[in-house]
Amino acid sequence: MVRGRISRLSVRDVRFPTSLGGHGSDAMVSAGYMGARACGPSYSGVVCAVNALAHHVLNKDLKDIVGDFRGFYRQLTSDGQLRWIGPEKGVVHLATAAILNAVWDLWAKQEGKPVWKLLVDMDPRTLVSCIDFRYITDVLTEEDALEILQKGQVGKKEREEQMLAQGYPAYTTSCAWLGYSDDTLKQVGATALQQGWLRADLLVKNLFLQMMDANQRWDVPEAVEWMSKLAKFKPLWIEEPTSPDDILGHATISKALVPLGIGVATGEQCHNRVIFKQLLQAKALQFLQIDSCRLGSINENLSVLLMAKKFEIPVCPHAGGVGLCELVQHLIIFDYISVSASLKNRMCEYVDHLHEHFKYPVMIQRASYMPPKDAGYSTEMKEESVRKHQYPDGEVWNKLLAAQEN
Amino acid sequence: MVRGRISRLSVRDVRFPTSLGGHGSDAMVSAGYMGARACGPSYSGVVCAVNALAHHVLNKDLKDIVGDFRGFYRQLTSDGQLRWIGPEKGVVHLATAAILNAVWDLWAKQEGKPVWKLLVDMDPRTLVSCIDFRYITDVLTEEDALEILQKGQVGKKEREEQMLAQGYPAYTTSCAWLGYSDDTLKQVGATALQQGWLRADLLVKNLFLQMMDANQRWDVPEAVEWMSKLAKFKPLWIEEPTSPDDILGHATISKALVPLGIGVATGEQCHNRVIFKQLLQAKALQFLQIDSCRLGSINENLSVLLMAKKFEIPVCPHAGGVGLCELVQHLIIFDYISVSASLKNRMCEYVDHLHEHFKYPVMIQRASYMPPKDAGYSTEMKEESVRKHQYPDGEVWNKLLAAQEN
Repeated sequence: MVRGRISRLSVRDVRFPTSLGGHGSDAMVSAGYMGARACGPSYSGVVCAVNALAHHVLNKDLKDIVGDFRGFYRQLTSDGQLRWIGPEKGVVHLATAAILNAVWDLWAKQEGKPVWKLLVDMDPRTLVSCIDFRYITDVLTEEDALEILQKGQVGKKEREEQMLAQGYPAYTTSCAWLGYSDDTLKQVGATALQQGWLRADLLVKNLFLQMMDANQRWDVPEAVEWMSKLAKFKPLWIEEPTSPDDILGHATISKALVPLGIGVATGEQCHNRVIFKQLLQAKALQFLQIDSCRLGSINENLSVLLMAKKFEIPVCPHAGGVGLCELVQHLIIFDYISVSASLKNRMCEYVDHLHEHFKYPVMIQRASYMPPKDAGYSTEMKEESVRKHQYPDGEVWNKLLAAQEN
Repeated sequence: MVRGRISRLSVRDVRFPTSLGGHGSDAMVSAGYMGARACGPSYSGVVCAVNALAHHVLNKDLKDIVGDFRGFYRQLTSDGQLRWIGPEKGVVHLATAAILNAVWDLWAKQEGKPVWKLLVDMDPRTLVSCIDFRYITDVLTEEDALEILQKGQVGKKEREEQMLAQGYPAYTTSCAWLGYSDDTLKQVGATALQQGWLRADLLVKNLFLQMMDANQRWDVPEAVEWMSKLAKFKPLWIEEPTSPDDILGHATISKALVPLGIGVATGEQCHNRVIFKQLLQAKALQFLQIDSCRLGSINENLSVLLMAKKFEIPVCPHAGGVGLCELVQHLIIFDYISVSASLKNRMCEYVDHLHEHFKYPVMIQRASYMPPKDAGYSTEMKEESVRKHQYPDGEVWNKLLAAQEN
């Protein structure tokens, strides 16, 4: 039952001063503006772009949007005035994702289901009608997608029960951010151990070398050289060894490292399905890390999950930021139940930050994401948190900015 | 002699209502905001981003910026708060280009030379010190670049004289925009003929099929199918046959079309040197179309010109928009004199729009760009034009927006 018309789009710039503590800061990206990744809240550039796209969604019936979701997606990404500052990348694409994430949240709430369940219960033809296949038909046609989803119906019920009972395996990256001192590292490491984060099946000698992350620091030859030296620590993967745009570079690195037992993981900064398509075509990655807010929402992520299935590459979502864990859990639980039907070499990132600001925060049990039960996409923030952290007028920023001036 | 400190950055949102007449509108992009491509003027999203980057440039000595231009480029593209909404793509990269274009304009004015001449006279080591080689060393190292530039010194003087006497060959795309009616098409076609735009060396039966442009409309199999059918018209190239992000797709298309005598041209929407690097590695294009405002200004374009030289692929710059012709002529004239040393299969796009708003408009003679003689990067707009077209308060927009409301 889908009803109602969209009469208002509220865009609010909510920021958390995480960069002051070094949380979430890696070698290349400071986390100060990560709020932009969550559903509503958005960094000012993204706010501009959301407002510029607003006319596509205002005064539209929700029924008409989701009834031709592929067409609506195409409409947003083909906006004549905005396409040239993308296309389908950067700020405009983040804005597209923000709008579509809100639409999915609304749709699932009307259906009275969490998004993962909405997706799991949807018939394959409707699922496929949400996907824009433009630019990927050389790898995945509508028919291919249907076939994959139809195969995924087998054993679906059992996998759903399994998820509800055991959850989806997670791994934590709360332990080792670059901004942390040695003491902080020891402390969060010990806490992670206590909380059961060291899963027997993932345990290697050194927690911090289990998976390595280069945060785009290296050129291609450097990445091969460094990782060949570090191979003795047996990392499962090297994440973002070079520029996220360098498909052929990732392919060269994979070719060198796979024989050493090291996989290449990338995706958190891959800007659309065209990049993921090529990473798969070029055998450039062994672990595919989708992001719930960088790609064009669920619509585009669906196409990536299906392409990954076709190439039999495990999806291990990126999370962290503000609300990324809340959102991406829906996608990966759907992926297991309806697409991949496998947990082999799969796990979902988890970062223990800022969940307290969400109305429906993730629930982690025994190092697993437990499927959310509340209707929607778990995107809603608490009104008080939004109010306090709104930039630049919220209480938190008022104080911080005043302190800076003194 | 470089001197002075940058004390103010003026960012103004100047727009021309070109989309009302269909000028510059292709199948995918309306031209309403193309002003953002010119140096100063910028669409509001880009304005936000320029302001967010401003602190890197304010109160800096010009001498320190250009004295470590590679470092300054890296500083802008590595901004911790902005990198994640790129990196090096979309709105933030357009903003980087806007700032750096202004810096080059200033530098050349201080040296009393047009930018092309500043570049031609610069010694190879200094030129190389402007380039950030991050992510391209697997194809072009600093040493490779130096070697190319040193070879380019031979015959430089003669080529400069040749350019000053004859100019750089141009081709016009003013004749066939999608928004034009049949009558308008006939009329602009006839005018182009009279103006000598039909160069003997480019002439084929049908002006409008000489080069074809798909404006990203096709998927890979569609592009091959269509162009195989259209091969009988013997187009020199097919431009933007598919997504600008699809390196492997362009390679597949090239492989199918080159035997039919059709080249693949792309680049106006390629967002950085990493994409160009891969297009060259994959043999995915036969004509490389740089854009003066999409890439990170001259600094990044230098690296692309040098990579193209290494792969012996002709550069045929994209132009049009607002001020793109004014800027890109400097790059291509430098390319001929100091890098490629060849005019074979090379020409620079020209569109006859909006030049009247620039202080130092391009000069076209006998279908060629005549090298600018005024100092700077030809980026400056007339103050009156800026005032009238400023969005939303300029006279032109005031009237248009008021008319819309009535």
